[in-house]
Amino acid sequence: MRHFEQELEKLKSKLLEMSALVESAVYRSVQGVVEKNEELAQEVLKNEGRINELEIEIDELAISLLALQAPLAADLRLVTAAIKINNDLERMGDLSVSIAQSAMALMKEPVIRPLIDIPHIAGLAQSMVRKALDAFVNRDADLARSVLASDDAVDNMRTASYHELISFMENNPSQIGQALYLLSVVRNLERIADHSTNIAEDVLFLVKGIDVRHHNEERTQAVAIQQS
Amino acid sequence: MRHFEQELEKLKSKLLEMSALVESAVYRSVQGVVEKNEELAQEVLKNEGRINELEIEIDELAISLLALQAPLAADLRLVTAAIKINNDLERMGDLSVSIAQSAMALMKEPVIRPLIDIPHIAGLAQSMVRKALDAFVNRDADLARSVLASDDAVDNMRTASYHELISFMENNPSQIGQALYLLSVVRNLERIADHSTNIAEDVLFLVKGIDVRHHNEERTQAVAIQQS
Repeated sequence: MRHFEQELEKLKSKLLEMSALVESAVYRSVQGVVEKNEELAQEVLKNEGRINELEIEIDELAISLLALQAPLAADLRLVTAAIKINNDLERMGDLSVSIAQSAMALMKEPVIRPLIDIPHIAGLAQSMVRKALDAFVNRDADLARSVLASDDAVDNMRTASYHELISFMENNPSQIGQALYLLSVVRNLERIADHSTNIAEDVLFLVKGIDVRHHNEERTQAVAIQQS
Repeated sequence: MRHFEQELEKLKSKLLEMSALVESAVYRSVQGVVEKNEELAQEVLKNEGRINELEIEIDELAISLLALQAPLAADLRLVTAAIKINNDLERMGDLSVSIAQSAMALMKEPVIRPLIDIPHIAGLAQSMVRKALDAFVNRDADLARSVLASDDAVDNMRTASYHELISFMENNPSQIGQALYLLSVVRNLERIADHSTNIAEDVLFLVKGIDVRHHNEERTQAVAIQQS
């Protein structure tokens, strides 16, 4: 194996390590909210440092690959995609930290009803992280497309949760502060799903050369194919 | 001037064009909310396409610079910084679109009181975009540090607005829907400020070689220096 390919494998495996940490941060932060599990929420805050370290390591590895190897065409696109994916993963780690902070703030409050949808949205968001990274590592366009389809499902669940939380607040104005934390959890899960979608779009660009970032028509088509 | 330098100038000027569009999108979307100016809000939705096109142009220019010129050391870091800044600018464009959509939803509602802080936060967020990009183009570390200081100011203003909006909702449960749109505007302005901060951190790394991304201590120090 050429030295370049070894370095590329190292880059991919660090990205997988990072995505595993992010996935578990999403899970733990949501358990913090749903099960009022303080220990899991604290672990998210504790593991943030490792995610941040990995971001810097991956960036440096990618830049040194560009500098020392001057890769061409396909390899170059792979390394620049890795830089973007790294950025998305780090933001997802930050969003998990926000969810864990909401969990801490909600720890002593009674559970309110609309909470019920959060585990579903979280489960979907979590599986999107894993699928997007697997799609990247295995250059799997079909898997990347399935992430785009899940994003639409998350958006629908988010809208339903919003309406539920708004009518809860209207009927229970004294619990608005608490409901806003839940609204923020839902919003952060939606943003985590959006970052997975960004990664999936980068993968499609990498594998198929299709730029789906700002072409809603093509994207809708990709989703339609996936769903058919 | 070497060909590489010409291409680098082109990259910088496209980033400046993009940041000018983003800055004006922030201004117009907020005027849409504050002055109920439907025309300005519509312009933000109309100009989104140009921002998205520029994102793709800048990405392609940066990747072709990496591919054809195989730049080393400082130039390489400059081009990879441009790829990240491009990403941040595009997200800021998206956030302005969200604000413009809130403006459209609020167009027929009466103005509620806590609105009063939004123009201040928006003014600050707008100037942060410009300063961060000027800092990048002129490699100006002091200007980049001033962006970090403004970010703390935005965070404080956001917290104050949140408290104001929450007590407004508690006292006016029938207007919760409307207040949530304003909360979302404030949150989106805060995120726009965060993206400017990311850019400023990239500039400091580029100019000084200091990685301030995850070192709060150093960052606090940078802010302290700036404020002294």
